[in-house]
Amino acid sequence: MRLHIQNPPASDLSITPAQWEAAIARHPDMAHLAMTMAEDPQGLEDGLREAEVLVTWTGLPGDPLRAAPLRERAPHLRILSFTSAGVDRMAPFDWLPDGVAMLNNRGTHGDKAGEFAIMALLMLRNHIPFFAECQREGRWAPRLAPSLAGATLGVLGLGALGGATARRARQFGMRVLGIRSGSEPHPDCDETFPQEALDTVLPRCDMLVLACPLTPRTRNILSRERLSLLPRGAGVVNIARGPVWDQDAVCDLLESGHLSACLTDVAVPEPLPPESRLWRTPGLFVTPHMSADDPLVYNDRTLDILFENLRAEREGRSLPNLVDPRRGY
Amino acid sequence: MRLHIQNPPASDLSITPAQWEAAIARHPDMAHLAMTMAEDPQGLEDGLREAEVLVTWTGLPGDPLRAAPLRERAPHLRILSFTSAGVDRMAPFDWLPDGVAMLNNRGTHGDKAGEFAIMALLMLRNHIPFFAECQREGRWAPRLAPSLAGATLGVLGLGALGGATARRARQFGMRVLGIRSGSEPHPDCDETFPQEALDTVLPRCDMLVLACPLTPRTRNILSRERLSLLPRGAGVVNIARGPVWDQDAVCDLLESGHLSACLTDVAVPEPLPPESRLWRTPGLFVTPHMSADDPLVYNDRTLDILFENLRAEREGRSLPNLVDPRRGY
Repeated sequence: MRLHIQNPPASDLSITPAQWEAAIARHPDMAHLAMTMAEDPQGLEDGLREAEVLVTWTGLPGDPLRAAPLRERAPHLRILSFTSAGVDRMAPFDWLPDGVAMLNNRGTHGDKAGEFAIMALLMLRNHIPFFAECQREGRWAPRLAPSLAGATLGVLGLGALGGATARRARQFGMRVLGIRSGSEPHPDCDETFPQEALDTVLPRCDMLVLACPLTPRTRNILSRERLSLLPRGAGVVNIARGPVWDQDAVCDLLESGHLSACLTDVAVPEPLPPESRLWRTPGLFVTPHMSADDPLVYNDRTLDILFENLRAEREGRSLPNLVDPRRGY
Repeated sequence: MRLHIQNPPASDLSITPAQWEAAIARHPDMAHLAMTMAEDPQGLEDGLREAEVLVTWTGLPGDPLRAAPLRERAPHLRILSFTSAGVDRMAPFDWLPDGVAMLNNRGTHGDKAGEFAIMALLMLRNHIPFFAECQREGRWAPRLAPSLAGATLGVLGLGALGGATARRARQFGMRVLGIRSGSEPHPDCDETFPQEALDTVLPRCDMLVLACPLTPRTRNILSRERLSLLPRGAGVVNIARGPVWDQDAVCDLLESGHLSACLTDVAVPEPLPPESRLWRTPGLFVTPHMSADDPLVYNDRTLDILFENLRAEREGRSLPNLVDPRRGY
């Protein structure tokens, strides 16, 4: 079976031949795969001509998957596996040929994202955005901070990121209210709610972490009105996508003091331009979309997850990372 | 038995009558205590005349405990209990009358300090000091960060602060090397070393947390030479006291790139003046001595610990919070 890996040009996260060989050594039942690898446009077209499986990134320069009809260029393609968990950059999915299973990379990011989220919650609780502003001014301004224990955390989205966040938050004694698209209870949440109950959950949240995929259902889900439902002094962490909250409303509510502090790892647009008000909103700390990617283990986990999906396909099981193009995740 | 509480003027941390009453309700065997409370100089002198127990702060304005011989002003004093864990501000202890047991407040700070320390380690690992600098400049500069798991942490000092730090670090999969004045193993450390072995431990530490008391033995213990023993790229967190490390050497080693990032909650002097180079050293994040004080529980725990000591004295047991004036803790 032929598999092509199209890496982004000059990226720290490119899959290397050594990582591929190590993955094959961990999964000897995948030794039959004939792998090609490229990062240039011609290499992609050459790979596509024979490949049954394509592994690639959502953000390739020139957007080559949508540049011309994919089925004509890739007559044998059956599986298209993206290396990111969120595939919102590729929506809508009208370019995806019939009969091609699209996979995402959910499961790679949970551990790192859970660490990042608990760091962000501790930073908000400990006034770190305020102290960063004090440091700019050379101002020693003590302000005490309580522990996280006993505070109530809302987690919007209970996939790998939100689940890991809930687990860490419970280690610190927080009470966790989960909000998800379904309504099944989550083992790491004290209470779990369907998305429709969001308006009744928000007023209970001392802190909130956004960890949902960006889909038509979650775009602007944390609207200005919903942000105002949070109690005065609440803090919000966004490790999802910029468009899931009303970014300008967040800035307004920080300036008015309704929100005490926020940390966002995502923004509209990315990269955020120097003139954006996000950089200068008091109480807002910005990190550049790095919360969930651990460079030491990222590609190893990516290939482990890919192989588990190929194995499932071979054995006629459902693919664990299959994306439903209508839902978008 | 008469007990006097001398609060600092206009402090958020002052013990309130309501907190006292709640503590008595938790400890009904202490209902016999006749408590007086003041925050003015005359109130202190009035209280001292009758008190067998004095509860107070190390940083009272005018340094009244040392201003005139204490025994003459406090003829009945048997127990002097400070509300801080570190009593280095009161050293040397030549002013302490014979026969007065001096207590500190160790045990109050551990939970909060452990949270703060793991936050600081996550911040260093996730390049937060760098991103704070990027934010000043409006610069979106992604830099990936590995998880804490598998990294090696040194913890200097294994009292309440260092022990809580070690426990949290293990929750995140770190390998913990503890360094303490004695040599007993610590249950939350993978390995424990006596202070004399410090030079052999430092080269193994990806990260280091300073959590020791400031005493003659620990002053400048992390000298310029010892800082240089840390591997290139190491990060250091100081939640102890400013003089335990060579503050200028820390700045130099951050500027040269030998250290990747540091977070300090303590400084020389405090408050740190606007012109200090600490505010502007790249990779250094400064917080204003707030790491270990949780305002929601501080005084409750302070009084619980005090009463446990009074109970121990009544029953002829050794006082758990007794400070040895020669050791300084």
